[in-house]
Amino acid sequence: MKSYDVIIIGAGPSGIVTGITARKQNPEKSILMIREEEKGLVPCGIPYIFHDLDDISQNLMGPAPFVNAGGEVLVDKVTDIDIRGKTLQTESGNGFSYGKLVFATGSIPTIPTFIRGYDLENVEYIAKSFNYINGLMDRIRPAVDIVVIGGGFIGAEVAEQLAKHRDKNVTLVERENHCLYRAFSADFAALADEHLRNAGVNVLTGCTVKELQGSSGKVESVILEDGRSIKADLVFSAIGYKPRTGLAARAGLQLTSNGTIRVDRYLRTEEKDVYAVGDCSQTSGFITGRTDNIMLASTATAEARILGYNLFSISLLRTFSGTLSVFSTELDGFVFASAGAIEQTAEEANVDYVIGRFEDVDRHPGTLPGAKKIIIKIIVSPENGEIIGGEIYGGKSAGELINVISLAIQKYVTVYEMISFQTGTHPLLTTAPTKYALVKACENAIVNIGK
Amino acid sequence: MKSYDVIIIGAGPSGIVTGITARKQNPEKSILMIREEEKGLVPCGIPYIFHDLDDISQNLMGPAPFVNAGGEVLVDKVTDIDIRGKTLQTESGNGFSYGKLVFATGSIPTIPTFIRGYDLENVEYIAKSFNYINGLMDRIRPAVDIVVIGGGFIGAEVAEQLAKHRDKNVTLVERENHCLYRAFSADFAALADEHLRNAGVNVLTGCTVKELQGSSGKVESVILEDGRSIKADLVFSAIGYKPRTGLAARAGLQLTSNGTIRVDRYLRTEEKDVYAVGDCSQTSGFITGRTDNIMLASTATAEARILGYNLFSISLLRTFSGTLSVFSTELDGFVFASAGAIEQTAEEANVDYVIGRFEDVDRHPGTLPGAKKIIIKIIVSPENGEIIGGEIYGGKSAGELINVISLAIQKYVTVYEMISFQTGTHPLLTTAPTKYALVKACENAIVNIGK
Repeated sequence: MKSYDVIIIGAGPSGIVTGITARKQNPEKSILMIREEEKGLVPCGIPYIFHDLDDISQNLMGPAPFVNAGGEVLVDKVTDIDIRGKTLQTESGNGFSYGKLVFATGSIPTIPTFIRGYDLENVEYIAKSFNYINGLMDRIRPAVDIVVIGGGFIGAEVAEQLAKHRDKNVTLVERENHCLYRAFSADFAALADEHLRNAGVNVLTGCTVKELQGSSGKVESVILEDGRSIKADLVFSAIGYKPRTGLAARAGLQLTSNGTIRVDRYLRTEEKDVYAVGDCSQTSGFITGRTDNIMLASTATAEARILGYNLFSISLLRTFSGTLSVFSTELDGFVFASAGAIEQTAEEANVDYVIGRFEDVDRHPGTLPGAKKIIIKIIVSPENGEIIGGEIYGGKSAGELINVISLAIQKYVTVYEMISFQTGTHPLLTTAPTKYALVKACENAIVNIGK
Repeated sequence: MKSYDVIIIGAGPSGIVTGITARKQNPEKSILMIREEEKGLVPCGIPYIFHDLDDISQNLMGPAPFVNAGGEVLVDKVTDIDIRGKTLQTESGNGFSYGKLVFATGSIPTIPTFIRGYDLENVEYIAKSFNYINGLMDRIRPAVDIVVIGGGFIGAEVAEQLAKHRDKNVTLVERENHCLYRAFSADFAALADEHLRNAGVNVLTGCTVKELQGSSGKVESVILEDGRSIKADLVFSAIGYKPRTGLAARAGLQLTSNGTIRVDRYLRTEEKDVYAVGDCSQTSGFITGRTDNIMLASTATAEARILGYNLFSISLLRTFSGTLSVFSTELDGFVFASAGAIEQTAEEANVDYVIGRFEDVDRHPGTLPGAKKIIIKIIVSPENGEIIGGEIYGGKSAGELINVISLAIQKYVTVYEMISFQTGTHPLLTTAPTKYALVKACENAIVNIGK
């Protein structure tokens, strides 16, 4: 039985980054990564395969950086684990012993078993699997009428990309009043609906899917609760993901009520020498510390770096506590980004807040070619002025500007401090120095604190 | 004699922001802003008048936000100030008394009196004056051979914009080995030269101008020290700016050896109730605290906000100490940005440092349309890992990404903390979460600290 110092199960972002980081810290340790498929995909790039990238071959993510760092990779499936004996078995009959075991098993799409007809043919998912997506491409190509169920990030991005094909009619059905409602306040989310419509997507919000109907086992229409029927050659279900933890549960690991593997701040499970990282592992909210269910590659890789540094002993303290959700997407050429608390999450958690909002154009003067409207809204604790969240709508610059807000939240920066924040500004790149939008939003929050 | 609670001399970014902020804090106070010209320009937008904006009318910056906040504006020129008597006189014969006086008189181009022929006709400057630039447009239009002296930000941007006109031959002469050498380390600055050349500018570095020659009082050629002669219908001198402090000096205010008005951290001069802000006032380096000479609209407006809040009493502490230079520009479609220390300034100040560098593409996968190379270099104190500076070369996202670094420097964030920095990433907007370039640069700095 071959033995490794570390075995990582899974080769998504968290598995790869854990592997690379751990190898670089411990070049003398042998590390094996076991992946189920030969090829891997950039997970957040999957929606763009459907139009902007145009081909799955343009979205590959391989283990090369891990292999270059001295790691080994095996394509196989782990079937059994003996946590006490520190051994595992694979589908192809291999057995391994390990010193440390890392679960990086990711997440899988939630199957809408509560919708009749969910198991018809051509009801599809954005599974993070090369083989699945590769096969899916052949089913998308001939489809004319496509219905996407769920207007979260994945649903919205897939719908926006598919609608770029002129020969397809794309309908997006969202149960709530707006798409992206979990990551944005209602006014921002309403802009997302508007941009999706502008991009050619037929957006139906406040609508629930009752049933999928078909003939010869193949989907043909989506029936809404209000009785409407939408023609469909292909249906995407994009209603969320659940942690992939069957193997961990069978091995006896403790799960949270969200179904994630229970871990501490250093990604250690309750079993000695067993770790879990990424979508399959527990996260706790940055502000409340409550267990939540954030599945983001950026979060997963931040965890993976911490795990990679600390696998053999805690050498690098985790300095930003809890999981700060930082979301961003681009729809119809406009960026939507958020970090930390938004109005509704602050209310749900019973956290006092005031808002600071500012609206401008993202270049200066605003007459410059390519200038786009920008709106920044920050959420601030009125007691001490700490920034606890923010949202941005604007052009591409919002994609990194949200990370200024992210760092501000993580470092407990107050709006009072932000008044003297020194920034770089440039006509072609940012809002004007006289009214740098993030600083103006902070000023407006100070006004609102004073009220 | 009319009396105001506050008189601000100057209507550039620092004057306007001081006025707006002070009025909002003290709506009962009367504030007069005295400006010399009826119309104002967005200062950093001036180079773009020459091509991308195409017309001066597209780059106006008026005092409307100040007037809307209840301020008054007078177009006139202050000629005499009686600091003890708290009164001032203007060119058109007005006299005013004031409670508090703010110098926001800005800066003017340095005249190269050491170059013979500097006073020929068609030797031009990027003066921050509507009337001057408006007149200049008529002289630029017919010019075919244009020589720009000085490859700092203004010179480089003006040359890049002018070279977009196919009928003009643009030559840039820079004394040092590279353009932008003060804000970037040699490898980044070399990329700036390369992009300027690619944009059609004839870049001559390591070259000194000896003389300007002409006939009938009009410039016709630029003679270099090495003997070469460059044909020129028009010459731009872009060798720097000096603080505009003649009025302040005549009024008896103390100046620094750089010629700026001496102020404390709250922009107070040594005379009671007299303040100075922006390019005309003293700045002190963020890292060393030494008096320097940073003239940036972003710096000026950050100072102006502090002054506006604290004009009547210190109500809002300045929390980020010293002036952090944050520069950004775009040349040939590529962004160059820097913040804080770079290698040569760290060396000059005798500050220990290590570098963390990372190179990637700014979208993920890198096959996405519009993806550009990105290079990040951070400068780190090896003793405790604090980030003290950074440089970015890349696409437009670098314009706000430099502000993540700026905030990290201002909040004394260490590279160890950045390992657990949670960021937002998106295929169309940022580097990949598995190798978010700023975090990877921090990881590489940690490796270098360990060496």
